[in-house]
Amino acid sequence: MDSLPDDSFGSISPAEFFYRNRQMAGFGNPAQALFSTVRELVENSLDACDLAGVNPVVDIRVRTVAPKTYEVSVTDNGSGVSYEHVPEAFGRVLFGSKFAMCQQRGTFGLGVTMAVLYGQITTDSPVMVETKCGEQPAKRFEILIDVQKNRPVVVSESEGEREGPGTTVTIRLRGNLARSQERILDYVRLSTIVSPHVLFSLSIDDSHIRVGPHTRELPRRSRVCRPHPRAADVELLRRMISASPGIRVREFLVSSFQQLGTRTASRLLRFANIDPNRKTAELDRDDILTLSSALRSFQGIQKPSSDCLSPVGKEPMLTAVRSLFECDIAAYAVRGPTEWNGNPLLIEAVLCVARGFRNTSGSFPILYRFANRVPLLYDASGCVLTKGLRETNWSRYGIMDLGTPVILVHVCSTRIPYRAAGKQSIDTIPEIETEVQHLYRDLGRKLGRLSGSRARAARESRRLREFKRFFSLVVKYGAELADVPVPPTGHLVQTLFGVDIDE
Amino acid sequence: MDSLPDDSFGSISPAEFFYRNRQMAGFGNPAQALFSTVRELVENSLDACDLAGVNPVVDIRVRTVAPKTYEVSVTDNGSGVSYEHVPEAFGRVLFGSKFAMCQQRGTFGLGVTMAVLYGQITTDSPVMVETKCGEQPAKRFEILIDVQKNRPVVVSESEGEREGPGTTVTIRLRGNLARSQERILDYVRLSTIVSPHVLFSLSIDDSHIRVGPHTRELPRRSRVCRPHPRAADVELLRRMISASPGIRVREFLVSSFQQLGTRTASRLLRFANIDPNRKTAELDRDDILTLSSALRSFQGIQKPSSDCLSPVGKEPMLTAVRSLFECDIAAYAVRGPTEWNGNPLLIEAVLCVARGFRNTSGSFPILYRFANRVPLLYDASGCVLTKGLRETNWSRYGIMDLGTPVILVHVCSTRIPYRAAGKQSIDTIPEIETEVQHLYRDLGRKLGRLSGSRARAARESRRLREFKRFFSLVVKYGAELADVPVPPTGHLVQTLFGVDIDE
Repeated sequence: MDSLPDDSFGSISPAEFFYRNRQMAGFGNPAQALFSTVRELVENSLDACDLAGVNPVVDIRVRTVAPKTYEVSVTDNGSGVSYEHVPEAFGRVLFGSKFAMCQQRGTFGLGVTMAVLYGQITTDSPVMVETKCGEQPAKRFEILIDVQKNRPVVVSESEGEREGPGTTVTIRLRGNLARSQERILDYVRLSTIVSPHVLFSLSIDDSHIRVGPHTRELPRRSRVCRPHPRAADVELLRRMISASPGIRVREFLVSSFQQLGTRTASRLLRFANIDPNRKTAELDRDDILTLSSALRSFQGIQKPSSDCLSPVGKEPMLTAVRSLFECDIAAYAVRGPTEWNGNPLLIEAVLCVARGFRNTSGSFPILYRFANRVPLLYDASGCVLTKGLRETNWSRYGIMDLGTPVILVHVCSTRIPYRAAGKQSIDTIPEIETEVQHLYRDLGRKLGRLSGSRARAARESRRLREFKRFFSLVVKYGAELADVPVPPTGHLVQTLFGVDIDE
Repeated sequence: MDSLPDDSFGSISPAEFFYRNRQMAGFGNPAQALFSTVRELVENSLDACDLAGVNPVVDIRVRTVAPKTYEVSVTDNGSGVSYEHVPEAFGRVLFGSKFAMCQQRGTFGLGVTMAVLYGQITTDSPVMVETKCGEQPAKRFEILIDVQKNRPVVVSESEGEREGPGTTVTIRLRGNLARSQERILDYVRLSTIVSPHVLFSLSIDDSHIRVGPHTRELPRRSRVCRPHPRAADVELLRRMISASPGIRVREFLVSSFQQLGTRTASRLLRFANIDPNRKTAELDRDDILTLSSALRSFQGIQKPSSDCLSPVGKEPMLTAVRSLFECDIAAYAVRGPTEWNGNPLLIEAVLCVARGFRNTSGSFPILYRFANRVPLLYDASGCVLTKGLRETNWSRYGIMDLGTPVILVHVCSTRIPYRAAGKQSIDTIPEIETEVQHLYRDLGRKLGRLSGSRARAARESRRLREFKRFFSLVVKYGAELADVPVPPTGHLVQTLFGVDIDE
């Protein structure tokens, strides 16, 4: 980087960075770009609906407007985007929600703006946003991005037509529908596994499908929590201290972090050799460094609260899986809440044996991956969830020969360590890896037991049927010998073994 | 993203983005962070030395300063960093070279600042930079990053001590040396394959090694080129037009793009139905869109020039491979220059059969990947170079049973489509995939022929040796029968077959 001519040196805006490196954000080729555009708009819509607390209806339309050119339009019944934020939310890369300890689908402020940017550089068209918040009249915007400055350019702003609250976003882009259509269908279908309360309607040119809802019940709203002490690196700690400068250190700890009561805070400060009554503003760099390592290494602190997580849960997930797959037996298992780097973590999964599937992955179950209620469809090979699958010895559970085992695994955390900005695979974090391995084994055992007990039950009932047949013969011959009428005996067997046998 | 409380919405600085998502930039865990810090500093040093045109000497020191805490220091004899740029080059994420069509190791302005950021959040220490440009006295800086504002904070600035030009960068960070030491060693050794002109000296605590140089010859300097027409998306085209507003469209095309002479430009403009004499400033959005698609789809344009690429070349690469691996036979092959999205592309590789290696990858050669003179050591599974390896039928070349085949493949381009900001694996771009497949097949055939001709030569010389032995017996018995002295015959066989046979 040294001694380049001076004018070749400069600050690169985030928009410029992702314009140059769009493959990192899931926009590497026309097929993936079309898929990612749908995905990002749907994620945004679902987050908006969850915030509004309504039963979500998401309408997705993909229309061919010219060869290799498509218009993607996604409409939701969420709460709308507040009008003053529309230009930046759609026209500035990395404009999004501030760090909040809460499970969300999108968190980067990157996805939708990448779709806008891609549409703009391939078709020169602005994004169209029509949104309505509450009782205000709807508004309609056309927005482009000034890539070099990473700034929205509002092309037009006018009254909108929509009557109910919600948002419609329309993006025109060059893509490849033939090569992405299947993935888009899969994405929508699989979305209903982790968002079983959503009604999706999908139109691709002249074909239409509707999927979901599998349940009318809204998922538990995830709450924003205070950070866990284990997340307190120097940077975060300094920010938190400068946000509450005038208070005593102990109070600061108790009021700023979760799982820290007065007693634990006092012990921690004694451990760190910091006077609990000092004012936070008096702490110097060394104190902050000491406090940070104490917070991260102190043993007496409980695991993070899972209030900020929103797993799907056993019944809704099983219902959704049964609606989507033809399966005889299915087991649900969950691990956590635990944590990685202070972020609460919960992993849930369903293992089922599905009919009408061809298993091409040999000696492993077919894997579907989800993170924070979003299906992950690309880059399976580098994902920690795939790695865990390969490291599990599936043959020991006796389920591989029942049919085609399918695993659907859902990682919930306030932060998902995606390997790239395209959010398609999860990095190998030791804590996540361990939990996943345990989860897979739990599932294997559960389904093994289920299939085992089902086989046992079948054997048992066959045995009882035989017994009943012979018993009735014994009774009949006995009655004939004694020269009495044959008494009814069906209920006798039933009473004897306490089971109901169908003949 | 809708209807969050207002204060939770905002612009996220690039530093903040990568602070939250450090695993995307190769800083996901302490072991990888230590490795990436070394790697980023070395890359920077090598780019600086190449620009200075000197025989590079790069000194890498990793020192344990406390449990799990290390100081990484890299010194080079490059041209130094111009003093006014030091704070931003090391203290601002995404500050780097502007878009230049030229092969470089680093281009994002991300790598070193990520290392600085990681050091800062784990040890609260600033980066130390000592640099000397030309005849000016050396300067020494200590720099931190204001993460929220993405701005350098200069902690101190003083006179430096170094006498010769060059730069020393020192970063203190928490890491895991036990788990990264092997990778660091591999990285340095493999770097000499693609930078055979560099002398590396590496100290890790009390152990020291020196590797290279394998050649004194400096590589060809890659030149900055004009963009190729196929790279002209609407965004780039608009920028180029606004940079030269007052000229005629045809002149604009000829002077702004490579491979476009006056004749081709005229034909292209006729094809796009744009008057070649219009001023660029008069072009409206539709014209620019039309011109962009014409530039990208017009058939009569030559492939991009490879002047902006700097491959290692056959002899230096073979020399370096032979210095590093014990190998009997080795073949070099190269594909290109060709292009992907208007970026020139050249891929070169060496396939050798190495001794002292245990092949754990079964029926495939061991693969070492390089891009723009940098070894890629992580995330092999998702890389297009690995994919190509798996798709090649290696058994057909008869080389898998010779020993352990090793492939070293080097991708050169003005833009490498990395899958993530950590720059560890290359995305599957169809043009690259095709070239790689051809290259592997070329290599297989070449090495197959080499090993085949070597086997043939051995067979031939065995045959001749036998012949010579029998011939001398025939001569002896003939002489005995004729009762004459036995004449010398060694030279006869030699003359007859034109070969020299050793007994």
